[in-house]
Amino acid sequence: MKPVKVGLLGLGTVGGGTVNLLQRNRDEISRRAGRDIEIVHAAARHLDRPRTCSTEGIRLTTDPFEVVDDPETEIIVELIGGEDLAKELTLRAIERGKHVVTANKALIASHGNEIFARAREQGVSITFEAAVAGGIPIIKAVREGLVGNRIDWLAGIINGTANFILSEMFYADREFGDVLAEAQRLGYAEADPTFDVEGVDAAHKLTILASIAFGIPLQYDKVHVEGISHVGQEDVAYAQELGFRIKHLGIASRTEDGIALRVHPTLLPSRQLLASVDGVMNAVMVSGDALGPTLYYGPGAGAEPTASAVVADLVDVVREFTLAPEDRVPYLAFQSHALSDDPVLPMDRVETAYYLRMQALDRPGVLAEVARLLGEQGISIEAIIQKQPEPGAEDVPVIILTHRVREWQMNEACERIEAQDAILGHVHRIRVETLD
Amino acid sequence: MKPVKVGLLGLGTVGGGTVNLLQRNRDEISRRAGRDIEIVHAAARHLDRPRTCSTEGIRLTTDPFEVVDDPETEIIVELIGGEDLAKELTLRAIERGKHVVTANKALIASHGNEIFARAREQGVSITFEAAVAGGIPIIKAVREGLVGNRIDWLAGIINGTANFILSEMFYADREFGDVLAEAQRLGYAEADPTFDVEGVDAAHKLTILASIAFGIPLQYDKVHVEGISHVGQEDVAYAQELGFRIKHLGIASRTEDGIALRVHPTLLPSRQLLASVDGVMNAVMVSGDALGPTLYYGPGAGAEPTASAVVADLVDVVREFTLAPEDRVPYLAFQSHALSDDPVLPMDRVETAYYLRMQALDRPGVLAEVARLLGEQGISIEAIIQKQPEPGAEDVPVIILTHRVREWQMNEACERIEAQDAILGHVHRIRVETLD
Repeated sequence: MKPVKVGLLGLGTVGGGTVNLLQRNRDEISRRAGRDIEIVHAAARHLDRPRTCSTEGIRLTTDPFEVVDDPETEIIVELIGGEDLAKELTLRAIERGKHVVTANKALIASHGNEIFARAREQGVSITFEAAVAGGIPIIKAVREGLVGNRIDWLAGIINGTANFILSEMFYADREFGDVLAEAQRLGYAEADPTFDVEGVDAAHKLTILASIAFGIPLQYDKVHVEGISHVGQEDVAYAQELGFRIKHLGIASRTEDGIALRVHPTLLPSRQLLASVDGVMNAVMVSGDALGPTLYYGPGAGAEPTASAVVADLVDVVREFTLAPEDRVPYLAFQSHALSDDPVLPMDRVETAYYLRMQALDRPGVLAEVARLLGEQGISIEAIIQKQPEPGAEDVPVIILTHRVREWQMNEACERIEAQDAILGHVHRIRVETLD
Repeated sequence: MKPVKVGLLGLGTVGGGTVNLLQRNRDEISRRAGRDIEIVHAAARHLDRPRTCSTEGIRLTTDPFEVVDDPETEIIVELIGGEDLAKELTLRAIERGKHVVTANKALIASHGNEIFARAREQGVSITFEAAVAGGIPIIKAVREGLVGNRIDWLAGIINGTANFILSEMFYADREFGDVLAEAQRLGYAEADPTFDVEGVDAAHKLTILASIAFGIPLQYDKVHVEGISHVGQEDVAYAQELGFRIKHLGIASRTEDGIALRVHPTLLPSRQLLASVDGVMNAVMVSGDALGPTLYYGPGAGAEPTASAVVADLVDVVREFTLAPEDRVPYLAFQSHALSDDPVLPMDRVETAYYLRMQALDRPGVLAEVARLLGEQGISIEAIIQKQPEPGAEDVPVIILTHRVREWQMNEACERIEAQDAILGHVHRIRVETLD
């Protein structure tokens, strides 16, 4: 069979990895796919940059539209990132009747609904396995492997940078800022780490996972997003004392009132497999009504792990060439006419347990008052740690683990606790999930 | 679109689970698949048995051939297990041009090559996600998700019964026989536990995984198979002292000389995620050249987890109705003409590290002699534990951890060690893998 001809947009880290992988494993891949896959045309911002891959046999250009418009390219692989240009190129490829493989989570999370609508009209595939958790085939697992399940919830460590920082804070007992600086030196974190550290990247990925799990349209703007910059070294240590690890999780769950979508630091029981996922590794736990909990673990970033997902998508698309469009795996797992309008819950109606840390004056009755104020909001206490005061200090840290409660009730309780003279500053909170 | 009509062979645990799942999640499934999937005809050994599912709307028979021959059934789901009858029914379904979904690992591992050859002639699909690791979509992950990788090795906890027993031996410090009896009471182990405990079931699954990972024909008879019945309570404890857990693994790896396929108890470093997989849960770790290590974890058995895989296969088959057969995912991941004839290594040429336990007379020079005999075979020692003799005893347990060595060299060394007067009885061995 004649080779499939692919146009590549972007020759950076993942682009180079994709070229290398298709070349190195050409034989392995065509033994599986039944035909060769060739990159024939590629666009890079600068043509004179040193490359991580050989570009022999590939026409090169600085104009990505040239690749999209090239009548020879049947599939376009979009790896330039960002939203505006990537969207324009993707829509143009669709218009030209070309299938698109992308690793761009921001593009899919923010513009996927529009892109899929246009792709459906043109009968082309849009695949995005590489957009979530790098090379782990999590999109395929949820969209196809768990197709028989009503999915109840999923929770994932889906940002390697944040997980590296939290892991180092745990194992090396270091401060957030200190580890972040090292992550930047190691190339795990960008010069501007906001996307990773403040949860934006994880929220993009969670948006996509939630859609394919629950059959809802992409709704990035409704995700509650918190980063890890306010997690203190002492929180990591207290959590350990209580039998927990702190992880930055993206959590999507079905509740009676709607879908809860949130990204935030989370205390997880240490015995949970997800709690043992360390360093830059990613893992997603998915719970379906038939299957129960399953976990998918692996490298969530990097040139070749991400390229592995891009190639898997390429092969899937190639295989679907002769398939009637209505028989293909739907973009968002559910047929487009069958997406549901289940509401995404506002965060103050979401229920979780809490880890609270506050500085309290070391005098009688303070703990009792805090407990009373929590009780007033129907919040029951699972554990309290009160530390000895430092020599010469009048205040002590108080750590409280609560049972599950709605966010608005906790807001109310914390406001009242903070109003107490004996409580200094804010009540510091981290949510707790057991994933049982 | 009109519903797809399915014939079901077997209405036991998994059969009942499949009927229930298709009924309960009918809406969810057809929102994804784009059409309804209906079981219209089912065969059970006894029609008057109490069932775990409603059979309303399903024609029932005791003759499975009637279901296969029914012109209405488009897909046959084979859940009767065993080899002979299952094979006959599967071949007959293929002859009738019907697609087959099976959960039968023995059938695929022992007769898959023949079945796939016939299916290819007829242009029908044979899917078997439920045959390995229950509901975990591991076949899909390896066959499709990792399609861009040259897979280097995989290692899995793929028998829940054996894992339950080893977990209980570890956590509750109990003897093998005692835990096995409990597993039988709980229904985790069969009255005849040979298949689970002696590794036959795991070897069936490993055979399948190795084929789809490496592109080799199914070669069940070449798998080296050892069970867990010789793992002692003391081994579990000594392994822990050395920083290891004992797990019953199926391991397939590519070596310079060929493919190594083996099922045996294995010491795994405790820090390995796979070492933390406890109870009846399954997990498979797969390492590809591009992706590195990934892990897939979940329930490996049970009515609904297995039914989850059966339904996923059904939806895949339904989606492929309009696909040209040459574009479908190949039965064994690689195109049938592209399977390789890489040899499967005889076990004595496989290289692993070793845990050795022996009883030695408590007198000077014995350890030095053992070390010398190991050294003669080029085996270097990583750690030795020599225990104090029990009061009144003249012999002590000696535990040795070695570096990697070919099996035949270890055989030689052990023979010589056992010939020493100061060594009582056999050298007890368990292999060690770090999976790095």
